[in-house]
Amino acid sequence: MIFITRRERFNAAHRLFRKDFSDEKNLEIFGKCSNPNWHGHNYELFVTIKGEIDPETGFLLNLKQLSKLIKDRVIEKIDHKNINIEVDFMEGKFASTEVLAVSIWDQIEADIRIYGAELHAVKLFESENNYAEYFGK
Amino acid sequence: MIFITRRERFNAAHRLFRKDFSDEKNLEIFGKCSNPNWHGHNYELFVTIKGEIDPETGFLLNLKQLSKLIKDRVIEKIDHKNINIEVDFMEGKFASTEVLAVSIWDQIEADIRIYGAELHAVKLFESENNYAEYFGK
Amino acid sequence: MIFITRRERFNAAHRLFRKDFSDEKNLEIFGKCSNPNWHGHNYELFVTIKGEIDPETGFLLNLKQLSKLIKDRVIEKIDHKNINIEVDFMEGKFASTEVLAVSIWDQIEADIRIYGAELHAVKLFESENNYAEYFGK
Amino acid sequence: MIFITRRERFNAAHRLFRKDFSDEKNLEIFGKCSNPNWHGHNYELFVTIKGEIDPETGFLLNLKQLSKLIKDRVIEKIDHKNINIEVDFMEGKFASTEVLAVSIWDQIEADIRIYGAELHAVKLFESENNYAEYFGK
Amino acid sequence: MIFITRRERFNAAHRLFRKDFSDEKNLEIFGKCSNPNWHGHNYELFVTIKGEIDPETGFLLNLKQLSKLIKDRVIEKIDHKNINIEVDFMEGKFASTEVLAVSIWDQIEADIRIYGAELHAVKLFESENNYAEYFGK
Amino acid sequence: MIFITRRERFNAAHRLFRKDFSDEKNLEIFGKCSNPNWHGHNYELFVTIKGEIDPETGFLLNLKQLSKLIKDRVIEKIDHKNINIEVDFMEGKFASTEVLAVSIWDQIEADIRIYGAELHAVKLFESENNYAEYFGK
Repeated sequence: MIFITRRERFNAAHRLFRKDFSDEKNLEIFGKCSNPNWHGHNYELFVTIKGEIDPETGFLLNLKQLSKLIKDRVIEKIDHKNINIEVDFMEGKFASTEVLAVSIWDQIEADIRIYGAELHAVKLFESENNYAEYFGK
Repeated sequence: MIFITRRERFNAAHRLFRKDFSDEKNLEIFGKCSNPNWHGHNYELFVTIKGEIDPETGFLLNLKQLSKLIKDRVIEKIDHKNINIEVDFMEGKFASTEVLAVSIWDQIEADIRIYGAELHAVKLFESENNYAEYFGK
Repeated sequence: MIFITRRERFNAAHRLFRKDFSDEKNLEIFGKCSNPNWHGHNYELFVTIKGEIDPETGFLLNLKQLSKLIKDRVIEKIDHKNINIEVDFMEGKFASTEVLAVSIWDQIEADIRIYGAELHAVKLFESENNYAEYFGK
Repeated sequence: MIFITRRERFNAAHRLFRKDFSDEKNLEIFGKCSNPNWHGHNYELFVTIKGEIDPETGFLLNLKQLSKLIKDRVIEKIDHKNINIEVDFMEGKFASTEVLAVSIWDQIEADIRIYGAELHAVKLFESENNYAEYFGK
Repeated sequence: MIFITRRERFNAAHRLFRKDFSDEKNLEIFGKCSNPNWHGHNYELFVTIKGEIDPETGFLLNLKQLSKLIKDRVIEKIDHKNINIEVDFMEGKFASTEVLAVSIWDQIEADIRIYGAELHAVKLFESENNYAEYFGK
Repeated sequence: MIFITRRERFNAAHRLFRKDFSDEKNLEIFGKCSNPNWHGHNYELFVTIKGEIDPETGFLLNLKQLSKLIKDRVIEKIDHKNINIEVDFMEGKFASTEVLAVSIWDQIEADIRIYGAELHAVKLFESENNYAEYFGK
């Protein structure tokens, strides 16, 4: 069993809030992250997959294929976008790093199985000081 | 003459566009950075000042003072904000990295002189691949 | 189950030695780290907690709360201090990265439970080339 | 149980290819990594070992010893070398990051046991975007 | 006058040597960098240009254009290549970081003038510990 | 004219204070950096030299020579030491980053001339957020 990881990046706007809260209540719970005019981040995404090394190629999976899969299923939908209002796989969800990490997992897990590998971890940095990791249920 | 540099960070939303352009024209000129729903970045700001070492302290300037000045004049106004619509020193300007670097210079230059030092450079990273620098006129 | 990590930093002096050893013996066992006049490091601390995402907020735990907890229980006691002689939670212990990681775990584990999350890992960098990790007993 | 990690670096040339494939077929499968004239990388290697803290020293293992072991068994054989043609422990193998990580594991595992610790992970970065990890069979 | 910088990366094999020296003499002068079987690096390239901000766009130059120019003139010719034997703009030259930085300058300087900006600096990292900078004659 | 830079690192303890001040006054002026029990840092040092490329080697100066010079004249004297009390070239000086950068310049400038190059800059990071630069008088 070997593990390989691919890093991809995206820049997006978001806001942490609940529609059923007032701006004041959102500020109290979510702090400056609730700013109604949005703020944003350079997100760094690390996708780790696991499986056996293919004796024909020395690869678990060609990283170009893994990169393309992440770009098709995640980056093209979220890069230079507003996470709260125009990313289909985040519709109706909190735009927190935790929820985003789980949602990215759900976007790519099945496709990675098609390639004969298994998704192991989604690690998402919102800043140099904060990240969330999800390893599946 | 010695130079000291302080790094500060802020997260903000922005959009590159002209009001007098259609969304199509903005997309043509500014690419995905023109997204009307905004996107955002983790900005890294490096402020460099120069002057003589104070023989009483061994400092050019206490970095806590420099940090406080940058926070008061720049970070508190722009962090977790939308650069295009709620940052006073960016009003009516393009929210490009170049213009932002010049505007940050204008925000802090006079105050640094008060401390007996001189502003040398404002270096602003929009991403790990792009930055702008301004050294004054 | 989701995992979130918060990075905090501190600068401290320390020395690796045993009181019951001569300076020569300490030098033999601990090398230049045993310098009786101390040396120091910029430590980077990564605290990882795990638990369920709160459906009311989209958070496992608000990272400001986690940051405050780490600051109150660890950073304020050790930052700009001498680890061997003035940090209460290191009293009578070796000031090695390994022992420091375990001691930081002991400082924060119970408090993280109060917030409804569980401490998963303490990862402590002494330099860009060395780090220790502790996952509990 | 404590975990400590040592980072070491090496620069090497390599090529991904199969001798039984034509250059065209190698290009199709391995892309530009199959260039017959070689290319190269700055590899970053993180070796993680685990075990109990020695109550006599506060160490799991003196990192100088771990560093020396990695240098003797891995770095001196591969640094500034061509991985495909002059590294004994890679003879007859694919020069992929996956295979290299496993081979480095095999080079050091037994020696680490001699020191009373256990090898936990070999993590090998080929670039800032790609890495492989091996935790043993 | 504003300065903007774009980072690009490439991986390449090279060797430091003189054809008119024996392998022994090359080893004496160039050390392990003279290995006849090549070694390689992940190079990081920072290209800085200067000029006036365009009042129509807020840009000195659209960074996509700068990135494309660097890719067309430099990266496509050198990435995953052997610098000594298959990079046209390095033919007959030493493959040192210094010479490479100057040669990259010569590859792009004229083209940047076409865009109305001026090349200010080429900064080339061969490793995290070494880089060369060239500012023109 | 080409510029090359070598990075070296050292870990040291220090304290910012004046002997003629009380501990209270030192705390007021120098903050927690005045702790009488010392604190410390991982310093990162970047030494930049300039000159002409040697047509015989393609080098400005062999970086091994530059590295050895910095190690002999600076690193061996300061690494794992207490800057205030056991570093000969800091005797009687403030242990601030500014003064340290100037003092490192004075330690190496003459020796670099012997090699036919010229010292251009000493850049010294005390932390990821602070650095001093000195370019000579």
